[in-house]
Amino acid sequence: MARLNEIGWEEFSKLDLEAKRPYLEREEGDGMPYHTLFAQQFDRRLLERLCALANRIRFINKSKEGALYLKNILAGRRAMLYFSQPSSRTFLSHQNACQILGLNTCSVRDAATSSEAKGESKTDTVRTFSSYVDLIIMRCPEKGLAEQMAWELSNSERPIPILNAGSGKDQHPTQALLDIYTLLRSFETKGGIDGRTVAFCGDLMRGRTVRSLSYLLTNFSDVKQIFVAPKELQVPDDVIAILESKGVRYEVHDDLREAVKASDAVYMTRIQDEWDASKGESAKIDTSRFKFGAEELALLGPDAIIMHPLPRRDEIATCCDHDPRAMYWRQMRNGMWIRAALIASVFGFEKSVMGCGY
Amino acid sequence: MARLNEIGWEEFSKLDLEAKRPYLEREEGDGMPYHTLFAQQFDRRLLERLCALANRIRFINKSKEGALYLKNILAGRRAMLYFSQPSSRTFLSHQNACQILGLNTCSVRDAATSSEAKGESKTDTVRTFSSYVDLIIMRCPEKGLAEQMAWELSNSERPIPILNAGSGKDQHPTQALLDIYTLLRSFETKGGIDGRTVAFCGDLMRGRTVRSLSYLLTNFSDVKQIFVAPKELQVPDDVIAILESKGVRYEVHDDLREAVKASDAVYMTRIQDEWDASKGESAKIDTSRFKFGAEELALLGPDAIIMHPLPRRDEIATCCDHDPRAMYWRQMRNGMWIRAALIASVFGFEKSVMGCGY
Amino acid sequence: MARLNEIGWEEFSKLDLEAKRPYLEREEGDGMPYHTLFAQQFDRRLLERLCALANRIRFINKSKEGALYLKNILAGRRAMLYFSQPSSRTFLSHQNACQILGLNTCSVRDAATSSEAKGESKTDTVRTFSSYVDLIIMRCPEKGLAEQMAWELSNSERPIPILNAGSGKDQHPTQALLDIYTLLRSFETKGGIDGRTVAFCGDLMRGRTVRSLSYLLTNFSDVKQIFVAPKELQVPDDVIAILESKGVRYEVHDDLREAVKASDAVYMTRIQDEWDASKGESAKIDTSRFKFGAEELALLGPDAIIMHPLPRRDEIATCCDHDPRAMYWRQMRNGMWIRAALIASVFGFEKSVMGCGY
Repeated sequence: MARLNEIGWEEFSKLDLEAKRPYLEREEGDGMPYHTLFAQQFDRRLLERLCALANRIRFINKSKEGALYLKNILAGRRAMLYFSQPSSRTFLSHQNACQILGLNTCSVRDAATSSEAKGESKTDTVRTFSSYVDLIIMRCPEKGLAEQMAWELSNSERPIPILNAGSGKDQHPTQALLDIYTLLRSFETKGGIDGRTVAFCGDLMRGRTVRSLSYLLTNFSDVKQIFVAPKELQVPDDVIAILESKGVRYEVHDDLREAVKASDAVYMTRIQDEWDASKGESAKIDTSRFKFGAEELALLGPDAIIMHPLPRRDEIATCCDHDPRAMYWRQMRNGMWIRAALIASVFGFEKSVMGCGY
Repeated sequence: MARLNEIGWEEFSKLDLEAKRPYLEREEGDGMPYHTLFAQQFDRRLLERLCALANRIRFINKSKEGALYLKNILAGRRAMLYFSQPSSRTFLSHQNACQILGLNTCSVRDAATSSEAKGESKTDTVRTFSSYVDLIIMRCPEKGLAEQMAWELSNSERPIPILNAGSGKDQHPTQALLDIYTLLRSFETKGGIDGRTVAFCGDLMRGRTVRSLSYLLTNFSDVKQIFVAPKELQVPDDVIAILESKGVRYEVHDDLREAVKASDAVYMTRIQDEWDASKGESAKIDTSRFKFGAEELALLGPDAIIMHPLPRRDEIATCCDHDPRAMYWRQMRNGMWIRAALIASVFGFEKSVMGCGY
Repeated sequence: MARLNEIGWEEFSKLDLEAKRPYLEREEGDGMPYHTLFAQQFDRRLLERLCALANRIRFINKSKEGALYLKNILAGRRAMLYFSQPSSRTFLSHQNACQILGLNTCSVRDAATSSEAKGESKTDTVRTFSSYVDLIIMRCPEKGLAEQMAWELSNSERPIPILNAGSGKDQHPTQALLDIYTLLRSFETKGGIDGRTVAFCGDLMRGRTVRSLSYLLTNFSDVKQIFVAPKELQVPDDVIAILESKGVRYEVHDDLREAVKASDAVYMTRIQDEWDASKGESAKIDTSRFKFGAEELALLGPDAIIMHPLPRRDEIATCCDHDPRAMYWRQMRNGMWIRAALIASVFGFEKSVMGCGY
């Protein structure tokens, strides 16, 4: 087995994702990640195991006895939420996932209150946090920082796991997990994900969500992907290149209604103008045709679903909120369950939770 | 029974408080609130039940076994403290009340760190929070927002309870509850609240505390109310109108010492200059005769008490702090107990706590 | 026994540290502090007891059963972390220490969110906090504030303990405790601290860490102290005066390499330019000869250790980080253990933890 403390940083950082993957697994050899850094660590088998574990945790938590059983799992362990990028929902989702498992949390949310203000390096900051806790959940604007920190810790006296809650523009693996979990739950009793058509609509260029979910869907058989966006915000070429290399069917166009009629799941996204290179850049784009409202709802199939990573602006009209096919609120709660499942499996509790008597 | 998911928002919001009340009760029909939004939800019977429960919790908590029993009550449940208005003591009081019952907490205290910065509506923000937790305790500057959110959640897939920890200028129901609890405790062995005289002094125009407590006192028999303030800050007409409609005895004047001699409880308040329409407005008012010091203490009856919602400036001289009749510190701790009692009853634990063996 | 509620503040505040000490002890007479305010409260006997307790807690925490035993010790109790001075690592260290013992925490970290913004006095603020919790851990820029608050609380209805997590420029007792604990652990199987040579290097003028540790080391026999610094940042005269009055051997010079060769422990410190009287003052000092790098590492004895209170800038080269003699990361984790030990002993659990079956 590949071990992260037996390879230098220079060498490791140059590997491609597929080659990095074994270095990030749990030593116990069950295939689950120890450090969770990118969506590509999860193949279909792992996705299905994690979703089954999330289902189990969700069910166990319904009774008080079950909830107390779960709270005992990681009692005595502690996690740090290190969020140097603003985020309330990702923060809260992870914090509540920790609490479900009895994991105590502490947090640093603003680089200014931390010792970085006194001239400390990021590496020292993260090693400091590792002195106190058993898991670091981190979100940061720097691409690759979570990966480097995972290597640093694996080469220290406190080799605790890192969970990437969003790094830079590209990776946000647990968001992709919760999207897959939502699809799996929605089609659980209706034949599963294989053979489905999933449409993505909105700002497909800049959302790491779309990128990761598109990739994870290639783990399933015969899933067709449709990308609906104004041309300035269409899906990047490298995402398409991956689909082509894997022989995945896809369409790229700008007709939301056509896509709605053809899809089992419509994944709406917000225009991410916080990434605008120049102020007001996004405002010049005509996005009026990329909103989901009453008319689109009328075209949606009876078993199809609407998803959104939230927060939304006006991409989905509030009149859709009470429709049973609107999955975006449940999607958010699914995030808490899948994160609890991931954390439980990082600490080696997958089997005992799956087999417990609750 | 009236149910909040069987009435539209437009219709509900136009009802008067008395008519709204049944929509906010627990479904179990024990009369206790499910959503706690305004002081007028509590009649004498409920106030006495809640205070009895607070007494019980306070007593149980004295032993370690009792404290562990209490911490088990809501273990496995989670609460969100959503405070978009600054407040440390109300925040801490609720947080510690949650901790007493084993309820895990998370918080959002600054609208800027939340997704509202990304253009999300308040409704979406609160629905998001409801995805993670089992109770939302919220404080906000917008009048009526807590009420609207209670309606929204009751009409969603996650109909969790809202506890209003202060909304706008008018409602702060748990502050009124802790004031009543302090009066009940102080006169518990001395014949109770009926027939007492309570004086309010200071900024009676702008404090929601005075307004709510004045109202709740009308639940008791023959309680006289005295309002002592500079004329610019006297009690508003609508408060007086309620007292007149209920036949409550009252006086309105500016002589604190006369009021002290005549009262069983003197409720001092701070000049709330944060609500000044123009800067420095309050500073022009002569408030020198509305402070409680050594001379007032000498006039106070041996069984009478001094109250203050805190924080104070110089309305009460620190020389009074060690007098056994100074109730303001204990009043603050009472807030924690009554909030624990309220939360326990929202979740249906009133009976089991009252009847437990500790 | 001296009791803090039997002496006035004026009288108490004028006592010297030695005379203050008995007023701050636990009433049970085991010599341990109730209020922990300054390093001088700890003599050798107490230091050794505390370190033994920290060792015990560290060991017990290794097993899940042990961790759950520890989390039960202060379950049902609550602590407030009141940090009006920015600090992430001291905050986190105390918070995690509390969590190890099952103590729930809440915090106020920014004076602006607290009621001080509404004109409240510090004393009222701390008394308010004491209404909700059972322990106040406080860090503040004001010299002597922690001491005054300890007196205030001991003279109130809620005489809960204060733990000083840094006040003003002079006192930070738990930092000194963790340094002693690190030395004791490092030399535990090698004959202990007696007879050792400890070198301090860097900004010896402004670090309260050096001041406190230098003092505590005088509790041990025949420990020589070497102070290595640019002359503008050398150790203050009052520290030297204490060593002379106690007959402690010491050297004051500016040759780090000579000191490294002669020492069992080299304690590096950061230039504390946040205390600069004028901006850029420190930048004018030549500190190039006061950095620990590969060459110094080569001169260090095989059993000697390197310490640093962290955060560091470039006083210690990162190439030293993986050397087994680099103790600074472990030193930080030791802080969590010794604080857990201190808190357990404040609440009277020293004996039961030392004697428990884990």
